[in-house]
Amino acid sequence: MSVSSPATVLADLRAEMSRQGLDGFVVPRADEHLGEYVPASAERLSFLTGFTGSAGLAVVLADRAAVFTDGRYVLQLEQQTDGGLWERRHITDDPPPAWIAKTAAPGAKIGYDPLLISEEGLGRYADAGLAMQPVTANPVDAVWSDRPTPPQAPARPHALDLAGRSADDKRQDIAKVLTEAKQDAAVLTDPASICWLFNIRGADVPFTPFALGFALIHADGGAELFMDPAKLPEDTRAWLGNSVSVAGREALEPALRRLAGKTVRVDPAGSPVWFAQRLRDAGAKVAAGPDPCLLPKAQKNPVEQAGARNAHDRDAVAMCRFLHWLARNAPRATETEMSAADRLLAFRRQAPGFRGESFPAISGAGEHGAIIHYRVSEDSNRPIRPNEVYLIDSGAQYDDGTTDITRTVWTGPGAAPAAVRARVTRVLKGHIAIATLTFPQGVNGAHIDAFARRALWDAGLDYDHGTGHGVGSFLSVHEGPVSISRLARPVPIAPGMVLSNEPGFYLPGQYGIRMENLLLVQPASLPDANRPFLRFETLTWAPFDRALIDPALMTASELAWLNAYHAQVLARVGPRLEPDVHAWLEVACRRIGP
Amino acid sequence: MSVSSPATVLADLRAEMSRQGLDGFVVPRADEHLGEYVPASAERLSFLTGFTGSAGLAVVLADRAAVFTDGRYVLQLEQQTDGGLWERRHITDDPPPAWIAKTAAPGAKIGYDPLLISEEGLGRYADAGLAMQPVTANPVDAVWSDRPTPPQAPARPHALDLAGRSADDKRQDIAKVLTEAKQDAAVLTDPASICWLFNIRGADVPFTPFALGFALIHADGGAELFMDPAKLPEDTRAWLGNSVSVAGREALEPALRRLAGKTVRVDPAGSPVWFAQRLRDAGAKVAAGPDPCLLPKAQKNPVEQAGARNAHDRDAVAMCRFLHWLARNAPRATETEMSAADRLLAFRRQAPGFRGESFPAISGAGEHGAIIHYRVSEDSNRPIRPNEVYLIDSGAQYDDGTTDITRTVWTGPGAAPAAVRARVTRVLKGHIAIATLTFPQGVNGAHIDAFARRALWDAGLDYDHGTGHGVGSFLSVHEGPVSISRLARPVPIAPGMVLSNEPGFYLPGQYGIRMENLLLVQPASLPDANRPFLRFETLTWAPFDRALIDPALMTASELAWLNAYHAQVLARVGPRLEPDVHAWLEVACRRIGP
Repeated sequence: MSVSSPATVLADLRAEMSRQGLDGFVVPRADEHLGEYVPASAERLSFLTGFTGSAGLAVVLADRAAVFTDGRYVLQLEQQTDGGLWERRHITDDPPPAWIAKTAAPGAKIGYDPLLISEEGLGRYADAGLAMQPVTANPVDAVWSDRPTPPQAPARPHALDLAGRSADDKRQDIAKVLTEAKQDAAVLTDPASICWLFNIRGADVPFTPFALGFALIHADGGAELFMDPAKLPEDTRAWLGNSVSVAGREALEPALRRLAGKTVRVDPAGSPVWFAQRLRDAGAKVAAGPDPCLLPKAQKNPVEQAGARNAHDRDAVAMCRFLHWLARNAPRATETEMSAADRLLAFRRQAPGFRGESFPAISGAGEHGAIIHYRVSEDSNRPIRPNEVYLIDSGAQYDDGTTDITRTVWTGPGAAPAAVRARVTRVLKGHIAIATLTFPQGVNGAHIDAFARRALWDAGLDYDHGTGHGVGSFLSVHEGPVSISRLARPVPIAPGMVLSNEPGFYLPGQYGIRMENLLLVQPASLPDANRPFLRFETLTWAPFDRALIDPALMTASELAWLNAYHAQVLARVGPRLEPDVHAWLEVACRRIGP
Repeated sequence: MSVSSPATVLADLRAEMSRQGLDGFVVPRADEHLGEYVPASAERLSFLTGFTGSAGLAVVLADRAAVFTDGRYVLQLEQQTDGGLWERRHITDDPPPAWIAKTAAPGAKIGYDPLLISEEGLGRYADAGLAMQPVTANPVDAVWSDRPTPPQAPARPHALDLAGRSADDKRQDIAKVLTEAKQDAAVLTDPASICWLFNIRGADVPFTPFALGFALIHADGGAELFMDPAKLPEDTRAWLGNSVSVAGREALEPALRRLAGKTVRVDPAGSPVWFAQRLRDAGAKVAAGPDPCLLPKAQKNPVEQAGARNAHDRDAVAMCRFLHWLARNAPRATETEMSAADRLLAFRRQAPGFRGESFPAISGAGEHGAIIHYRVSEDSNRPIRPNEVYLIDSGAQYDDGTTDITRTVWTGPGAAPAAVRARVTRVLKGHIAIATLTFPQGVNGAHIDAFARRALWDAGLDYDHGTGHGVGSFLSVHEGPVSISRLARPVPIAPGMVLSNEPGFYLPGQYGIRMENLLLVQPASLPDANRPFLRFETLTWAPFDRALIDPALMTASELAWLNAYHAQVLARVGPRLEPDVHAWLEVACRRIGP
């Protein structure tokens, strides 16, 4: 089978656009679920431009074409795309709507696929005064001769001893929310919500156990699941129960038409605008509102919380084995970024219930650690050398929970420079400031993010990413609606949420530091409290590298936290380790400070 | 002259509403400038209902009427209004638009005075599905027979050695902003903006040196000031210069009509909706945008900064004399909340350049201190007793700056209980956490507010107000657009801004604690900084009461800050004090801690 050249593909696309009466077309890096990981069949941006980054968008006009991405991927964009065909642009410095407005002829008809953009996303094009025109058949697909078939992994039951709450009960909860909001139904397009609501898991995309599909939930507690019946084995079909009707993707549009006259909630930020458009066409009233599963999914129930603790304890065994292995091998310069990541994955594969990585591991030695979203490849791979900083950010999917941990290690055998230790210690102080926080209910992540930064700010330093993200329960490692970030949505942190705590510091060209544990939000018990307070329970257990910590820069209470944490690492993980790893862990967890 | 009874006034108003074809009418506590302090001629809410609180709103329907206020004024609302005429409602629990929607007949015509509500404010009524109808003559005025005349205080030049930048230069700066935004003009309705832009001050409202008026500024730097010419003495008229045309209020509407075809910026939150309505009627394009004076006014120039330091040094003399006087008199139970506030005012009157209080002093002994916006009256006044907590929050207007300071004092002669000292010390730790903060440019007040609360949060405590507000330069003591609060607008803190730092703690029925200094935002000089950083310079100099501080609860660096602060108080203020006050201050500023 011949593969067309990039120039031919672009010419074919322009011909197809012309056939559809379009002066331009927008190609986001998105599938019909607007999620982070997309199946190969939806990688239109990569097919069209060659660019494989996880965030980007192309705009094709009759005589010009541009591809946009953010600061993380500027270099990769240059390397992967043909500068003769594509202008390369920074997506925030030069936003696509503004670029089209100043580049295309006034009144140009700009096509978009309404299944690949949210109502809010589309609004930004309309706000720029563009004449946006939905297509019914994506013109990229017309020229994509070797397009992969959509994924067909079977959906499996997520058992009650993992899910903690039956799908019937969850539907009743959501139905109550809809009834109170005077809404007849809600559209669900996020596979995380669908997997959570129906207590199923799948394998349609990498790193996240999604079974891709759509759903409608009604205010009476009934639900319609739109998922290829071939993906639903008999046991799964039985598991879904009689209150859930199942039909293929082709039944979706007729089902929306049956909602004529009803009030239907659609998430304007998270769902493709196609749903609101079809509902309005059908005479339904669209009520903009967040996906009703977001909040209950984020607040893990006691069974999920217990699962998270168990998954993290097993993950900790793999991490400690890896850190021990690294301590023995790194000073000898026998390993590379890639071999280390492979070794960590091998340790994780030994853990019961392991289902895969939760994201591509970031294994960055020296200057590569300063690239916040570094992903090692055959091209970039380099040895891990003695006496440098090495950063490893990785995570796993287990039946009972999702993990995400970052450690920063000094490879030795020499001592780390004082300046490096000072910066690592400031990052650690920020980590501890979050880990030890108690805070009243009602606070959101924008209000507490700065605690993680203050020790860095004192030295004129900062990092250009959020401090933490939500994490699912055997679901997405990046889960909304809550985060710890200056850009956090105004949604209060609530009991049962799992959040990462990962301050960092990056010295471009030299090294990167990041220290990440996952935290579980718990009610705090404070005897004099004049309102309800919350605190964080730590889920992640692996030592922070003593070689990079300067206890002289820490307060007594910070040292007390660190020593208590290390004591608990040894107590929880130690009994599961081989003698040589255990001996290493004892040293790694030794008391620090005066 | 006979004064009508409340019932008669309400009946007359309903008759007038009926005459105007209205089923309801909304009476906010606002004047045409939507500011905090309003002249007597605009106190329609108080005239109509008897309620004199600084925040409230009445709704009159044909057969029901309600008056709304917030939690601060619930008791006062009950006391001042007639429950037979008025339902009393909580303005956030039971918002007026929702109350009208559920109370009035569907489609009822609800009148509003477009000069007394912003476009955003009006939008909340429209969002509730109400048929809102602007009036051209406020029906309250038709029944207000003894309405006071509008204020006529003369506007005076604010000299260049106080303002620091000429009005011509300021207008050129604003003109540049408008030109860049492709706007032809901006409407100015905030007297603070007008006084700042034209370098004038007046005396039309209490506590703030406003000359009330309106203005238009054009993209060519020209301006039109709409202010009764009788309020502009010849020297002020000359001071305004030839690029500023002056006309009375009656010339405003014709001037707006002349903007037909132009693009005009109007602040949708800060300006009465009347302006946007008149401009649209005239065929102008209304561009919603913040008052262009807000940001440059908030960023004090070097002359204003020097003025602020000088004004605070003089204010500090009055505060230290007062605290010394209080220390001598409070244990003897000879004084009251009111006599103490009067005494502080008398000390301030001795200060050069004193022009009045910047707000009504909060002088609260014991349980009164727990009422966050307590205002002592003949009815509430009580003695200041030995061995209790006394809170004094006050401020002054000087030619060269505006002050605002709160101190919490133990009256003695006995020792303060350990629990009280612990809570005061936690509030002080929060105060110090803000005072010592360095932070990168781009941060706003919502991101740093929690630093002021952490020591309280650690004990399960919090306070229900923001941590700080902006302060003007011989202008409003509450100045936007920046604050330190979870509810802060997303406007970054910038050099030259003056902000209050006033964490607190309130035990209802027992006592209140608040510790407030003003801070001036400065660039920080950090040798290793990887971006621009800011820090706070303290402006306020008066001791914190040692009797309420427990040094055992403070870190070494907190104690170092406190001792350095007290040393500076003694060094700056001491030389200006009488021997007996100086001797007291030496003791008050003695080193604390190990």
